[in-house]
Amino acid sequence: MSEKVMLPKGMRDLDPQESILQQKVLDVIREVFELYGYSPLETPLVERMEVLKAKFAAGEEADVMKEIFQVEDQGGRDLGLRYDHTVPLCRYVAMNPTVKLPFKRYSIGRVFRDGPIKLGRYREFWQADADVIGVPGVLADCEGIMMAAEVFQKLNLEVVIRMNSREILNAIMSHVGIAESDFTAATIALDKLEKIGADGVQKELHEAGISTEQSQQLLELCQGEGSNQERLNALKNGLGESAALNNMQEIIDHLDGVDVVEFHPGLARGLQYYTGFVYECFLKKSSITSSLIGSGRYDKMIGKFLGGKQEFPAVGLSFGVSVICDALKEKGDELRPSTTRVYVIPVSDQEISYALNVAQQLRKNGVSCDMDMLGRGIGKNFGYADTQGIPYVLVLGEDEVRDKKVSLKNMVDGQQSQMTFEEALEIIQKN
Amino acid sequence: MSEKVMLPKGMRDLDPQESILQQKVLDVIREVFELYGYSPLETPLVERMEVLKAKFAAGEEADVMKEIFQVEDQGGRDLGLRYDHTVPLCRYVAMNPTVKLPFKRYSIGRVFRDGPIKLGRYREFWQADADVIGVPGVLADCEGIMMAAEVFQKLNLEVVIRMNSREILNAIMSHVGIAESDFTAATIALDKLEKIGADGVQKELHEAGISTEQSQQLLELCQGEGSNQERLNALKNGLGESAALNNMQEIIDHLDGVDVVEFHPGLARGLQYYTGFVYECFLKKSSITSSLIGSGRYDKMIGKFLGGKQEFPAVGLSFGVSVICDALKEKGDELRPSTTRVYVIPVSDQEISYALNVAQQLRKNGVSCDMDMLGRGIGKNFGYADTQGIPYVLVLGEDEVRDKKVSLKNMVDGQQSQMTFEEALEIIQKN
Repeated sequence: MSEKVMLPKGMRDLDPQESILQQKVLDVIREVFELYGYSPLETPLVERMEVLKAKFAAGEEADVMKEIFQVEDQGGRDLGLRYDHTVPLCRYVAMNPTVKLPFKRYSIGRVFRDGPIKLGRYREFWQADADVIGVPGVLADCEGIMMAAEVFQKLNLEVVIRMNSREILNAIMSHVGIAESDFTAATIALDKLEKIGADGVQKELHEAGISTEQSQQLLELCQGEGSNQERLNALKNGLGESAALNNMQEIIDHLDGVDVVEFHPGLARGLQYYTGFVYECFLKKSSITSSLIGSGRYDKMIGKFLGGKQEFPAVGLSFGVSVICDALKEKGDELRPSTTRVYVIPVSDQEISYALNVAQQLRKNGVSCDMDMLGRGIGKNFGYADTQGIPYVLVLGEDEVRDKKVSLKNMVDGQQSQMTFEEALEIIQKN
Repeated sequence: MSEKVMLPKGMRDLDPQESILQQKVLDVIREVFELYGYSPLETPLVERMEVLKAKFAAGEEADVMKEIFQVEDQGGRDLGLRYDHTVPLCRYVAMNPTVKLPFKRYSIGRVFRDGPIKLGRYREFWQADADVIGVPGVLADCEGIMMAAEVFQKLNLEVVIRMNSREILNAIMSHVGIAESDFTAATIALDKLEKIGADGVQKELHEAGISTEQSQQLLELCQGEGSNQERLNALKNGLGESAALNNMQEIIDHLDGVDVVEFHPGLARGLQYYTGFVYECFLKKSSITSSLIGSGRYDKMIGKFLGGKQEFPAVGLSFGVSVICDALKEKGDELRPSTTRVYVIPVSDQEISYALNVAQQLRKNGVSCDMDMLGRGIGKNFGYADTQGIPYVLVLGEDEVRDKKVSLKNMVDGQQSQMTFEEALEIIQKN
């Protein structure tokens, strides 16, 4: 058997220190989702293949299908592993017509894409999504940005959140005289502005048959300068008043207190299913260049699951958990193999009962605690506590049992002294 | 599309109220695992088929294989969904020879079995496992029982935990003269004692070719009476001293403070891979008859992944999360569609800014808060807060904005009054 002990290609284990870091990220995200009134929804990891395909336009299907892991049950049913949290949410809303709107739900968990493997890219990864179904207005759009800003603030990550709406981008393209049939090509080129610069975009626009004059005008309107309000004012002057710009005005007003948000009229976000508001989030100082979130409004998708007749306003925020963990590691967040606070060492078998009792008292007081279960020597036990990064050790020998005391060693400064259990507890809980 | 909007057979969604209940259970389990010094380990949900098969003896394979969901990637690799947390743990330890022992890890998540569907049984379900690798002694066995007892105490579930060791059961069978070749048949019969009673067991033992005298003796020794110590004493008198009974003595001594534990010398637990200590846990007053946990020692399994030459002492505790949720529902635990504490209503568009500000202040103070985003009338908004089970509503109209106040409505007693934000916060945080 041993030669077969391997992981599936493109997948990985998260060892305890990676798991603890990820758990910290997931806990912060969940806390923020709940602070904003979102409720959890758990859908299966496996969906019917027809459901997984429903999100995509006819042309896209072939490419995406290749990235779905195929699952087969005994009944020979055509199933697959979910590749995001959005499709299962749409399926759930479509299947449960009595769901009270607005429906604010979060989902945190694994998704699967059988795509090319790159550094830091795996075929199984974690996403944490919050979506609002049933709110057409900008308040739902703003809420996602407020949550994203709060998550990154709690994680001490310096980010910038860029936002736009597809309607504004379309209005700009119309204004400069680009034909609607060229919108997609122009959008794809513009979306690369941060990556390839204005010259690169202009070259791509030229290749798409857009005149130099048009592309210069386009870039001028899309590369706003100054504050969000100044950028919006420039567009209002250029294009005149419109519903899309009024919406953005409301958004900018509501997000007055969120200083990491920037209005970028050229931003598109690749995915075709976004219908309106979009935003993304990048680290300010980092070698990591991908967006930490993928977010936007997708008012048409749930309707697809219902036969295409209805529109369901929907807006979602999706955190890329792995890239956030990578960002924390790059920033130097400590990797710990354990969250345990205290390690208890009975010096000999005679002290096991006493040690068990001490350990249970610590746990009753909410202090996480491990205990030597191998009867190793004190030196080996200190070494073990050290590799686990446990900050306190309690040594319990003959004297401690007799005097009803404990010897507390601080593993950071190496100090050790005898005291009562209550005194030790106070020190441990204080730090 | 709409006719295809279905779940995969045997799987289900956990709607917000079910998800919130399950999350509560998972949070308690995780808290206890961490209190006892266990660290998280995340392994992929997908494993190679060879790895998934390695746990089983040659004869068992065919049956179990049928219950594995088959997964195929683009490369045509033979993969499957995990059916427990133990096999991935063994694979991890086998692949990582530098893992520091004892290795105390927990894993909480979904597992998959493509088996028959019954009421309350699904093909995707949640398990929460804690395992210790590298400790041959009884302290590791005891720790699992202590954790199980603590989890059920925190969840206010009245349970009994039954424990035994396979060595004791084997010693009893030897003692009454049952041939080793009949151990398996006798064990299977005895394991049904609680279900079919002594008469039923005796009948099955008779069918297995065991004499009436032997089966009477067997049942007498297995059906101990009185305290755990009295049951053990009876066995010591009957069988004489042995390592297995001395181990049980230690376990009984260490578990002195755990009053829900009972020593049952007839207990076997079905799975063949348990090699020593086993325990299970049942509700005291309930229509639910399945064990809430599956637990025991499996010293030989990791060795199988390493070619069978080595033994790795290993003992594990696995919580059946769904059955625990069912138990909480039966007991009458409240099902809530939301954990949100406050719902904020701006009476008109004029108060949206003020309302957003109030909502953000609540969140900064750790109070979860939702807000009307549809501009509905007050009556509709109260109705929405009510269906969501939100205990407090803040109504913010012209007067409140002018006076810099809030109107707080207690949704339980219906009282509403105007006050400062700080006064409202104090009331909300107190309850």
